[in-house]
Amino acid sequence: MTKIGILGYGNLGRGVECAIKQNDDMELACVFTRRDPAGVKILTDGAKVVSVNDIQNYRDAIDVLIICGGSATDLPKQTPEYAKYFNVIDSFDTHAKIPEHFANVDRSAKEGGNIALISVGWDPGMFSLNRVYANAILSDGADYTFWGRGVSQGHSDAIRRIEGVVDARQYTCPVESAVESVRRGEQPELSTRQKHTRECYVVAAEGADKAKIEKEIKEMPNYFADYDTTVKFISKEELERDHKGIPHGGMVIRSGRTGWNLENRHVIEYSLKLDSNPEFTSSVLIAYARAAMRMHAEGQRGCRTVLDVPPAYLSPMSDEELRAHML
Amino acid sequence: MTKIGILGYGNLGRGVECAIKQNDDMELACVFTRRDPAGVKILTDGAKVVSVNDIQNYRDAIDVLIICGGSATDLPKQTPEYAKYFNVIDSFDTHAKIPEHFANVDRSAKEGGNIALISVGWDPGMFSLNRVYANAILSDGADYTFWGRGVSQGHSDAIRRIEGVVDARQYTCPVESAVESVRRGEQPELSTRQKHTRECYVVAAEGADKAKIEKEIKEMPNYFADYDTTVKFISKEELERDHKGIPHGGMVIRSGRTGWNLENRHVIEYSLKLDSNPEFTSSVLIAYARAAMRMHAEGQRGCRTVLDVPPAYLSPMSDEELRAHML
Repeated sequence: MTKIGILGYGNLGRGVECAIKQNDDMELACVFTRRDPAGVKILTDGAKVVSVNDIQNYRDAIDVLIICGGSATDLPKQTPEYAKYFNVIDSFDTHAKIPEHFANVDRSAKEGGNIALISVGWDPGMFSLNRVYANAILSDGADYTFWGRGVSQGHSDAIRRIEGVVDARQYTCPVESAVESVRRGEQPELSTRQKHTRECYVVAAEGADKAKIEKEIKEMPNYFADYDTTVKFISKEELERDHKGIPHGGMVIRSGRTGWNLENRHVIEYSLKLDSNPEFTSSVLIAYARAAMRMHAEGQRGCRTVLDVPPAYLSPMSDEELRAHML
Repeated sequence: MTKIGILGYGNLGRGVECAIKQNDDMELACVFTRRDPAGVKILTDGAKVVSVNDIQNYRDAIDVLIICGGSATDLPKQTPEYAKYFNVIDSFDTHAKIPEHFANVDRSAKEGGNIALISVGWDPGMFSLNRVYANAILSDGADYTFWGRGVSQGHSDAIRRIEGVVDARQYTCPVESAVESVRRGEQPELSTRQKHTRECYVVAAEGADKAKIEKEIKEMPNYFADYDTTVKFISKEELERDHKGIPHGGMVIRSGRTGWNLENRHVIEYSLKLDSNPEFTSSVLIAYARAAMRMHAEGQRGCRTVLDVPPAYLSPMSDEELRAHML
């Protein structure tokens, strides 16, 4: 039985709690929170809710700590800090800062004699390892990643900050014709605009200038200006009813050529269609918690990523069972 | 530079030769053949063609031996035999006999102080590891594997053995409506007939009884009786012109549920569209040759499968480069 600690009880933390329930070799020991523990209600009977200030007292009660904070400000501090005391896993997803985060976590984890797995999830995560596999197999080729149709929290937040907006939900959508071209192995060169569109559902305040809001969204640099963006105004009730979920997904495609004169084409595609982005990410985190235990038991110390973990380590099956039934 | 030896120069051996050309850190040292070496013409300047009887003299000239024989009779003998003298890789694909093959190869490889990777390719191979990843992530779900549209050599051969048949080509095709249902997350129960159809292109001898041939194909037990099979008679020229390639592919799909009450659905799909089945398999073999070198250098000995190999080991990039650019 692997005893899991969850640090941070938002969408991701709750997702981890649900994933633990689905895995018989996993047990939720503790949820650590920065809030008043008395005000945090969790779903699991018998698991504790504890203030993060007391986390040091739980070093023997936890095999793996899953850190469910945000990548912007939480994880860069939390993961190096707690890797000193626990085997840890995070889903750090600021791609450009991974090498720096890795170095910080590696130092702490080695100091504490622990194993740490960072950037676990689907992108980075499953998408990353599919990029690596596909590139290693098809050395002559082109990579494509499409995201969606799915909710982008960052873009939804950007719309909410506009004057006169009460609430908003933004969906990132792959351009179907671009995906089809890539799937046919055509290796097109695609601009930002040719790859994704952005769909915005906006609840405006009474009397707000909708034309002005729409213009402000569509011209927002970085977020929307480089995309074909559609804006639809809906009621608060419609938003609640039709846009409550957090679906996401996407695909990683590599198209490449082989043969003495590169005469043959191949297309490798990995795709995800997810009803709940945080619950899927959580399910990946729990599978890697299993791997972390095995790596630690082998004597591995320091920071690793999904690229360093053999597929078999994620499975509750023995190597013999895997060879007999899954290979 | 990794020096590769190829044992067996058929479609797969030639594919490996082409894949070596595409990878700057790989070099073809020798092709070993059971035929008279004088009669075997290869494509690579500077590489030798040598009788398999002299293979022992090349132990220092080869880092990894890629064994390109058939799974029915060649590999069960060859891989255990040569694992005593070389680091070896094969694409053994008789799923039911993998545990036995593994045990035999493991014994030899340990005896010789070598590393061996068996069942490398796409199924078993990339499909297997995608099954393992998807099962580890979605513990509550259902697995589906579809093959094709692609040429089945075994089924083509079975048709050729019928009286009055000059030549034949059989394509295995996934049933599109079944694939779509699985992709929607519906978890259907599918019979053999509901998953795949079989398309046969047959060249009949002059004066042959075509109705009889068609009946014999469609009623052939194991091969065709359980499938909706179509038979089309074509000329030898048409077969040459339209059916010369060896395309294949397919998809591994897992559909599963998460959430406290399993309220959310997810679909993970890995799919391949391949112009040349042997050349793609060869490209996988070469990527795992790179991994074998690294595992051997680490001191690993004995037999392994794709499930035991960290994704990073397949890549020519360093771990630092992978984290910076691929994660």
